[in-house]
Amino acid sequence: MADAPARVVIVGGGFGGLFAARALCRTAVAITLIDRNNYHLFQPLLYQVATASLAPSEIAQPIRSILRRQANVRVVLGEVEAVDLDARAVRTSTGTSFGYDYLVLATGNRHAYFGHDDWEPLAPGLKSLEDAREIRRRFLLAYERAEVEPDPLRQAALTTSVVVGGGPTGVELAGSMIEIARHTIRRDFRNFDSCDTRVVLLEGGDRILPGYGEALSRKAAESLRRLGVEVRTGAVVTEVEEGGVWIGAERIAAANVFWAAGNVASPLTRGLGGDLDRHGRVAVAPDLSLPGRPEVFVLGDIALFPGEDGEPLPGVAPVAMQQARCAASNIRRLLAGTRTRAFRYRDKGSLATIGRSAAVARFGPVRLWGFPAWAAWLGVHIFFLIGFRNRLLVLIQWAWSYLTYQRGARIISRKEW
Amino acid sequence: MADAPARVVIVGGGFGGLFAARALCRTAVAITLIDRNNYHLFQPLLYQVATASLAPSEIAQPIRSILRRQANVRVVLGEVEAVDLDARAVRTSTGTSFGYDYLVLATGNRHAYFGHDDWEPLAPGLKSLEDAREIRRRFLLAYERAEVEPDPLRQAALTTSVVVGGGPTGVELAGSMIEIARHTIRRDFRNFDSCDTRVVLLEGGDRILPGYGEALSRKAAESLRRLGVEVRTGAVVTEVEEGGVWIGAERIAAANVFWAAGNVASPLTRGLGGDLDRHGRVAVAPDLSLPGRPEVFVLGDIALFPGEDGEPLPGVAPVAMQQARCAASNIRRLLAGTRTRAFRYRDKGSLATIGRSAAVARFGPVRLWGFPAWAAWLGVHIFFLIGFRNRLLVLIQWAWSYLTYQRGARIISRKEW
Repeated sequence: MADAPARVVIVGGGFGGLFAARALCRTAVAITLIDRNNYHLFQPLLYQVATASLAPSEIAQPIRSILRRQANVRVVLGEVEAVDLDARAVRTSTGTSFGYDYLVLATGNRHAYFGHDDWEPLAPGLKSLEDAREIRRRFLLAYERAEVEPDPLRQAALTTSVVVGGGPTGVELAGSMIEIARHTIRRDFRNFDSCDTRVVLLEGGDRILPGYGEALSRKAAESLRRLGVEVRTGAVVTEVEEGGVWIGAERIAAANVFWAAGNVASPLTRGLGGDLDRHGRVAVAPDLSLPGRPEVFVLGDIALFPGEDGEPLPGVAPVAMQQARCAASNIRRLLAGTRTRAFRYRDKGSLATIGRSAAVARFGPVRLWGFPAWAAWLGVHIFFLIGFRNRLLVLIQWAWSYLTYQRGARIISRKEW
Repeated sequence: MADAPARVVIVGGGFGGLFAARALCRTAVAITLIDRNNYHLFQPLLYQVATASLAPSEIAQPIRSILRRQANVRVVLGEVEAVDLDARAVRTSTGTSFGYDYLVLATGNRHAYFGHDDWEPLAPGLKSLEDAREIRRRFLLAYERAEVEPDPLRQAALTTSVVVGGGPTGVELAGSMIEIARHTIRRDFRNFDSCDTRVVLLEGGDRILPGYGEALSRKAAESLRRLGVEVRTGAVVTEVEEGGVWIGAERIAAANVFWAAGNVASPLTRGLGGDLDRHGRVAVAPDLSLPGRPEVFVLGDIALFPGEDGEPLPGVAPVAMQQARCAASNIRRLLAGTRTRAFRYRDKGSLATIGRSAAVARFGPVRLWGFPAWAAWLGVHIFFLIGFRNRLLVLIQWAWSYLTYQRGARIISRKEW
């Protein structure tokens, strides 16, 4: 009688978890992939849902549909609440327990308010589809309210949006939002002039996109300003309240404040007993295993792994995907009784887009900006978008938005408004 | 000095309200269109959102974007709570009042449980995008639960869906659902066989699609049965409970029950002082005005207007659209001081679809079924879908679903699941 195959449990269906499952497709293991959503989310385009360019389903694909042909995987919808490292089992919120021989943790991160959790309802962040829908709802609803607001001061606040955080997400959000305000809705409203709408991008450090080098930071700020975004660096938010933010003694009246200023690893990392940094990331061994637990691998946003410059690797999709392949290969090595390999990140570059046809890009020594960077961004994102159908639809949506300035998904979901 | 233009207030941005606004585009009036959503919903395709074929934004278009070029309209997001017929004003839930010289009421209807309002949370109906998202969530979630359910009886209930009501909505829902169950998810789950999934369509009367004539009713039932739907006529639901429905002494165990068995006019009709039928519809004068109030017009689902056979006209888009044009023309006649015209409905036919490539259609004396009816349905719906971009995207979505049996929008929105 053959032995039962080794059980691999993967927690998280993001880039890390999904690519780990795929990388094990020819390995004789029984994989259980657990995610609290039934879909894989193409997170790099999430801001486009928040700004009504794409519909949620265009950047989300059911995980079980992506993995349908891979017979050694079963997909479970569930929220993992605890990992019992000694018993080698994970437990979901419904009480179901899944035992493992090898465990891959790739649960990603959430936005963080660093001691100001009370700001969250006032300044929502952008990590999930629900977050994106909520940002879209608030952003579009403010203009609807401005249309019927007789008081000019209150109307000005309703047509002002503040984005906190000058990283890629903040830059992309601000760039998309000013486009909607200045172009998409231009003829839609009768009681305010869309040229008076404001989008303010606040960055606490001395430049936006700090990961891209000084020249590209400057180019990005120039591009944003040309679009109409007010870019302010050295602007540390000291208070967020209903209807505005404070930067020291200065107040900006704004109906909407959006948060793109920080991340923290999913709370599951706290139960692992390892060393955590202030972002909640777990320090992992060179082969990506949890120190002292060779059968547990930690990937992506929740793993603290030093890059070549000694700084932790950033929480981006390419890191998670490369780590997933390394962890899968190390599981195969352990199964074969050979030694595991250390992970090494090959940095292929980074890209951030700034509105309609500008972007900044860094590929090794090459730096691009403006339209060439934007074209590169378009190509890379369409290529990596999971599922052929979505790629095609997204391409059409983009072409349509680009040619007409129209936004396809301007739905305000009902809540209480 | 010229007189100020007459104020026309239109309540509702469905087919009735939107077409009334459009029909007044060359008239010297100041129109205010009020809707509680910022979008016009293409309701005939709502069941496709509920069954994950289309994304919400593909059948919804912002009302102000549709009317952006029509300078005599302003669009207001708001929920009208009361009509003061004597003061000639409507009041929204935020307390804002809009005075009118002419009023067009086209607020549509809701599903009705006829004395069993406690069934609503157990058996959701399908009228709004939120309803469609909720049905999609429940339907897809039940299969996720079935995948991890060890008890065979409970698993069988989780893979059974009951649709109550054999009108067009019920038929379209049941037909789409069996397709997902038998084809779309076929290879996605490991712990149950998609051939064992059940979709049961319950109709209290003696045949489904009673509005289509006996021959087409029979064809429709045959088509549904061939797809795998259990069609039961003369099956009056006597109780709905968590996990099942009762038909007299018989219980069908089903995780999901969906309601397509009745409608009632929006509650605004109750304040109009006119005669209401049991569906809450207002009896209107031949020119569509409210009896005794020549300046108030009532259209679409909430108007009780006898057809040529003496039966009330059905609550379908063509009725609302034709009534909108008639009401607009009567407003112009009143402005010009001439007599109003009586409304006459030109029945151009009806269509209902049954799954992948079958439908039934009635165009005057012509009756179609099977593929020709389905092709007619496709053409008519794409033609009438508002907004060119959506037409194109929906066509691609349909072609894709048709060729591959895949569903693009299989997202389970998070709630508590």
